[in-house]
Amino acid sequence: MSLLVVGSIGIDTVETPAAKRANVLGGSAAYFAYAASFFTNVALVGVVGKDFPPEHKKLLSDRAIDLSGLEMTCGDTFRWTGRYHENMNDRDTLVVNLNVLGTFDPKVPPAFVETDFVFLANSSPAVQLKTLAQMTKRPTFVAADTMNLWIEIARPDLDALLSRIDAIVMNDGEARQYTDERELLRAGRKIQEKGPSTVIIKKGEHGALVISKFGNFSIPAYPLEEVIDPTGAGDTFAGGIMGYLAAGGTISKEALRRAVAYGSVVASFTCQDFSLDALQKTNREAIDARYRELLEMVRIEG
Amino acid sequence: MSLLVVGSIGIDTVETPAAKRANVLGGSAAYFAYAASFFTNVALVGVVGKDFPPEHKKLLSDRAIDLSGLEMTCGDTFRWTGRYHENMNDRDTLVVNLNVLGTFDPKVPPAFVETDFVFLANSSPAVQLKTLAQMTKRPTFVAADTMNLWIEIARPDLDALLSRIDAIVMNDGEARQYTDERELLRAGRKIQEKGPSTVIIKKGEHGALVISKFGNFSIPAYPLEEVIDPTGAGDTFAGGIMGYLAAGGTISKEALRRAVAYGSVVASFTCQDFSLDALQKTNREAIDARYRELLEMVRIEG
Repeated sequence: MSLLVVGSIGIDTVETPAAKRANVLGGSAAYFAYAASFFTNVALVGVVGKDFPPEHKKLLSDRAIDLSGLEMTCGDTFRWTGRYHENMNDRDTLVVNLNVLGTFDPKVPPAFVETDFVFLANSSPAVQLKTLAQMTKRPTFVAADTMNLWIEIARPDLDALLSRIDAIVMNDGEARQYTDERELLRAGRKIQEKGPSTVIIKKGEHGALVISKFGNFSIPAYPLEEVIDPTGAGDTFAGGIMGYLAAGGTISKEALRRAVAYGSVVASFTCQDFSLDALQKTNREAIDARYRELLEMVRIEG
Repeated sequence: MSLLVVGSIGIDTVETPAAKRANVLGGSAAYFAYAASFFTNVALVGVVGKDFPPEHKKLLSDRAIDLSGLEMTCGDTFRWTGRYHENMNDRDTLVVNLNVLGTFDPKVPPAFVETDFVFLANSSPAVQLKTLAQMTKRPTFVAADTMNLWIEIARPDLDALLSRIDAIVMNDGEARQYTDERELLRAGRKIQEKGPSTVIIKKGEHGALVISKFGNFSIPAYPLEEVIDPTGAGDTFAGGIMGYLAAGGTISKEALRRAVAYGSVVASFTCQDFSLDALQKTNREAIDARYRELLEMVRIEG
């Protein structure tokens, strides 16, 4: 197994200015795993409740995502309801019910404790550290995501996490919040000093800025004619990156850049429909075609 | 003379969260001409009042900008006072005194009526059309800038202008306002249908998206550790683009992409100090070095 992801699986209700969709598959690890599965084998560790719809599970197993680490426990699945503003960037969380996620105690099955590529999807840094402690061999590459809440209430744990991972994915607001720096270049460098040699700053529709030991790399988002629902874009961005890296097996300047470009492409598909609907309708060929389009869109011959 | 610019010259007072600078050289055409002068010969057509400080004029003439089209008339120079928000993107205009700019009637000197590259810096579309009517030969490439005010109050004139130019530069908010489209790709295509084969959408710190007959092109801004004052960034972005294009003399896919990259680089220098201070301290070599850095920052080998 080349890629392990640990994180939330949820049932989302999403409202945009144009439409509403209730009880769709969501959660950071679900989005991540689905996106990564276009590139490599993925194992998912997470928890759901007894109410978790079999069709949601089937969505994941149909992509050959290993679900032996998916715990089903008494209680209800994590639920999130959100509403997007007119600009499709800002959103309000209307309802969060952690449910079984509130006491999530990740258990990495023995088959996965030596996985080379590990992604700690958004959870409390304490849970992320707990996962990492179960790896019996230092993975080749560990990346993590986080959010504003943990920066606010769990900074010591987050610092400890950062000192033990290779890459962190944050959005621009989180990077600014964590470092108190407005300029992302400076924020990225400050985060890098905390441990991760690679800092990937997501800028939503504006793409991403990567600060790494291989130098800075900047990529725009693949421009879309229409955005239906950006939920999960960041998670699938990370899924594309880690899926591509795990498939290749090595970390190099060129591999990292290609991986980030693939992440952008996968995220762009995600935005074209609710939940995983657009990703369900695509395939590796279509992803590759859009990847080539994105590369042509940013190409300059000096 | 290879490049002609017509537009405002002003005296600015700028306040940022960190500092304030009073009575500095400003205005769209001044910024544009200064930036373009790193690449080619520039002639400037504009108007100032009797109060225009000789040292501001010297700043322009020191760069070998032809000022024979700079009219000095009775009254005061255009003045603008603005204050930037903490995020350094949004700003409030505190004072605008059009003064002599209010009755600006551009007169293109006979020596420049056959200039090949023309930039109509931000003015009312009526004034921009009046300038264009004075060109006795259809220029190779005419580009224009505009602003939210003209989209609101002078749309028919703006439409007429768009039908007669090769390229329009707008920021993202203006492109959305003009087209009523949220997604910039769609907005750009709608603007293109109005006439200009090239639509350059500025996204501030997020770079630019170019919709053209050569395909879409997307470039990030050159990331800075610190932004001191973004005033004039958009005008110098356009100055770098047009200066580079005019120097080469031809419009091609590659030339346009390189030009936009040079525009980004020149704009990044502008942001590093108030007014033209940072550009004054730089030279073509430093611009070229940063250009190569930007290209390396966006390079991906498929």
